[in-house]
Amino acid sequence: MLRTGNLDPGSSTPLYRQLYLQIKGLIESGDLGNNTRLPATRELAGQLGLNRTTVSAAYELLESEGLITGQVGRGSFVTAASFRTATPPAASTPDWRNILPDGEAPAPASRSQVEISFSASRPSELLFPLEDFRITCGEVISSPEAKTILQLGSPLGYAPLRRYLRDQSQMEGVVNESDDILITSGCQQAFDLLQRTLASQGGTVVLEDPIYPGLKNVFQRPGARVIGIPIGGNGIEVQALEGVLARERPRLLVLTPNFQNPTGATMPLSARKAVLELAQRSGVILIENDIYGPLRYVGESIPTIKSLDASGRTVLLRSFSKLAFPGLRVGWIIAPRILVEKLTAAKQLSDLHTDQLSQAVLLRFAESGRLEDHRKQMLNAGLERLRAALAACEKHLPPGAQFTQPRGGMNLWIRLPGGLDASELLGRAEREGVSYVPGKYFAVSEAQPSALRISFAGLEPEQIRTGIRILGAIFEQELERTRTDSALDVPAMV
Amino acid sequence: MLRTGNLDPGSSTPLYRQLYLQIKGLIESGDLGNNTRLPATRELAGQLGLNRTTVSAAYELLESEGLITGQVGRGSFVTAASFRTATPPAASTPDWRNILPDGEAPAPASRSQVEISFSASRPSELLFPLEDFRITCGEVISSPEAKTILQLGSPLGYAPLRRYLRDQSQMEGVVNESDDILITSGCQQAFDLLQRTLASQGGTVVLEDPIYPGLKNVFQRPGARVIGIPIGGNGIEVQALEGVLARERPRLLVLTPNFQNPTGATMPLSARKAVLELAQRSGVILIENDIYGPLRYVGESIPTIKSLDASGRTVLLRSFSKLAFPGLRVGWIIAPRILVEKLTAAKQLSDLHTDQLSQAVLLRFAESGRLEDHRKQMLNAGLERLRAALAACEKHLPPGAQFTQPRGGMNLWIRLPGGLDASELLGRAEREGVSYVPGKYFAVSEAQPSALRISFAGLEPEQIRTGIRILGAIFEQELERTRTDSALDVPAMV
Repeated sequence: MLRTGNLDPGSSTPLYRQLYLQIKGLIESGDLGNNTRLPATRELAGQLGLNRTTVSAAYELLESEGLITGQVGRGSFVTAASFRTATPPAASTPDWRNILPDGEAPAPASRSQVEISFSASRPSELLFPLEDFRITCGEVISSPEAKTILQLGSPLGYAPLRRYLRDQSQMEGVVNESDDILITSGCQQAFDLLQRTLASQGGTVVLEDPIYPGLKNVFQRPGARVIGIPIGGNGIEVQALEGVLARERPRLLVLTPNFQNPTGATMPLSARKAVLELAQRSGVILIENDIYGPLRYVGESIPTIKSLDASGRTVLLRSFSKLAFPGLRVGWIIAPRILVEKLTAAKQLSDLHTDQLSQAVLLRFAESGRLEDHRKQMLNAGLERLRAALAACEKHLPPGAQFTQPRGGMNLWIRLPGGLDASELLGRAEREGVSYVPGKYFAVSEAQPSALRISFAGLEPEQIRTGIRILGAIFEQELERTRTDSALDVPAMV
Repeated sequence: MLRTGNLDPGSSTPLYRQLYLQIKGLIESGDLGNNTRLPATRELAGQLGLNRTTVSAAYELLESEGLITGQVGRGSFVTAASFRTATPPAASTPDWRNILPDGEAPAPASRSQVEISFSASRPSELLFPLEDFRITCGEVISSPEAKTILQLGSPLGYAPLRRYLRDQSQMEGVVNESDDILITSGCQQAFDLLQRTLASQGGTVVLEDPIYPGLKNVFQRPGARVIGIPIGGNGIEVQALEGVLARERPRLLVLTPNFQNPTGATMPLSARKAVLELAQRSGVILIENDIYGPLRYVGESIPTIKSLDASGRTVLLRSFSKLAFPGLRVGWIIAPRILVEKLTAAKQLSDLHTDQLSQAVLLRFAESGRLEDHRKQMLNAGLERLRAALAACEKHLPPGAQFTQPRGGMNLWIRLPGGLDASELLGRAEREGVSYVPGKYFAVSEAQPSALRISFAGLEPEQIRTGIRILGAIFEQELERTRTDSALDVPAMV
């Protein structure tokens, strides 16, 4: 048995790192000799009361440093020799742990033993139109523009792509004379540039609560204050927003009106108009994240807030990466020209410009009509998957569980009954081959212990059904167990 | 004649924008009616004492808003109709000018009338190995990995590329057991991530002076203090550095030991060792920017500081984009694992991950040996261009002019004699079809009015000779004029 000391779940050092450091210490001190077999991850997790993923992460780190080696079917063995022959660090090695700022632990990544992962809001690669992609690439690299594409480009983006997007946006009524378009390296960069340009000098930012952590973490930086407003079935709660806008005079309001991540909620037209009016009254700048907009499976599309806004306070964010190929990082910002100028200066300092090969390939993919063909495929597939997810939730979740009813996008949101903690149950779900992201990773102002996000778009309908059936059974058993425990907890009759 | 008011060169609003606003006002007020012909850019520049590029930029902005239209061979005409039918801004339009932070004017971009541009430190697209690139792309997109490449990736970078770079770096001795590799969206992003992770909470950053503005501007952000140390023919002045390290206890020291931008200077081995020892003594973290390292045309390569450093305080930055295709944005950071972990968290917030199509294409390009073949072509071409530039400087620059003697890279640095101001002379050079970047854009602590950067790598040898001949003649004439003026300035003999 491995003799590790106590691990501290409250420490700013993640558990996997604490475990890694302890095992490393045992190897370096010689307590664990060369060729010693380490316990299986499942076994050690059981002994220490940890998630198996935590142990796997510690082992991976040890392996990446050459301290242990995994052998298929046999387990992991100490191979400390490589460590001992390495150059010993000189006396003046920087104390990186003191130099570096503390950071938040990232959201859990799905481990390889998980067969059905509801953890990533992304399309299924089985749906990628590879043949169309190959044809498109071939056309781009054999075109006379190839030289221009491979040469250094403009921070604003590849000019033919910007023209194409402007034409499309004009037809749709989401760009006006005083607007301009900046190409970004995906929508994540758009958030980052907006934070730097509009919120880095302090001020309050209002977000939907819960919200995608990549968005929250961008704005939750030193100097900025972030307030979450609860989001219901019709998007952000307008009355709560009204109070906060009046009281806090925030600088920015970030909304995802279509198929919000994680809840899947969509704002109806009336809510969009109401929020825009509140924004105009309070002077807040409104950032409209519309990356899921083209993925509506049910019902009619609703105008963007940007298209309703004559006052020029709405900044619209879009991206190819939910629709087409997430590995190609191309998004864009539509905003008043004066703001685009500042964002472009920030963009130039961030990464000079967005990769031009992907810009040119995605332009050709869109121009040729292949993107629209692909979108139709995505809509069919998305509808099938959404229906499978909703039907499975209806059938398998325990009574009292609540789940949202998205009409598009990639995510739905479940709240468990009876005080169940989604974060605590994740380890068990993963042992049974299913993963999800617990609600706490999406929380802004309000804790979300009972909630979890199910990202359904990347899976096959059969996987969705199986995965939700397994989760439903786990939740049901846990409810049963807590009911039994509390029955036993009743004071004895005397 | 166009009746514009006075323009204020001291304003934070750039001149082109002031001019644009004035002309826009004249159009909106009706003073300039529809179909009125605007003066030619050269003519208006002469009238107002502006650079022609300034006028062109103002016209471009007017054209992009549909206020004027250029007709080939005829000039620019007011087409205000489209403006007047646009939606008038509502009363609550945000006051963007007050909301947005002031920014620095960007370095001048080369205008289209310039035929020989020494302004961009980038390779010539005539040297791009297009056929090899096409073959490489074809191999990547028809490989079984295509699906993985197009799917969402890891913030650390495309795993096969990271493995390849680690193997290469190990052979070269620039990575050790406790290091890791993070792929960045070009080297500019590496600077940005390092600034966010190591210098955003204050502290002093020491840079070479002069330095590439994209690097200086990243570190010159609110909260950080930047100190420039003069750079000579052998790189940063070690004695001056020693004083600053002792006195200021800076957090970061950023060096480009090979073919520095803009000076082309290279640090000899002795200087690298001396700087490393000073860094160890003072505790500063050393960032070694080596993007020009593979482009040595003359002499033997010198070990990187990273390979000399056993203390783990050196962070090495590299990139494909100077060597191969600048439009593909892929660079990497080699640093202690604990720092890479923090940089990866910052990277994830910045843009999730680097574009995977370009990562995979560049990996295949390198693995297949095509990158090394291409590098050999680049070395031949670079040597020819460097020799052409140095010979032309020798022949055409006026007596008293100084210029550096780079042995690789893309840039050399000229200092003009007799109090000539390179910034003032740029307008005249551009009128004669030649551009460069004046020294002031590279200045950190010391003004560089007499200096200019010549980027020679993107031009043909004949263009280099012609361009430097034209510049030499302009500088010579200006020297002659100032000599005559000062001769006239001599007090009368009495």
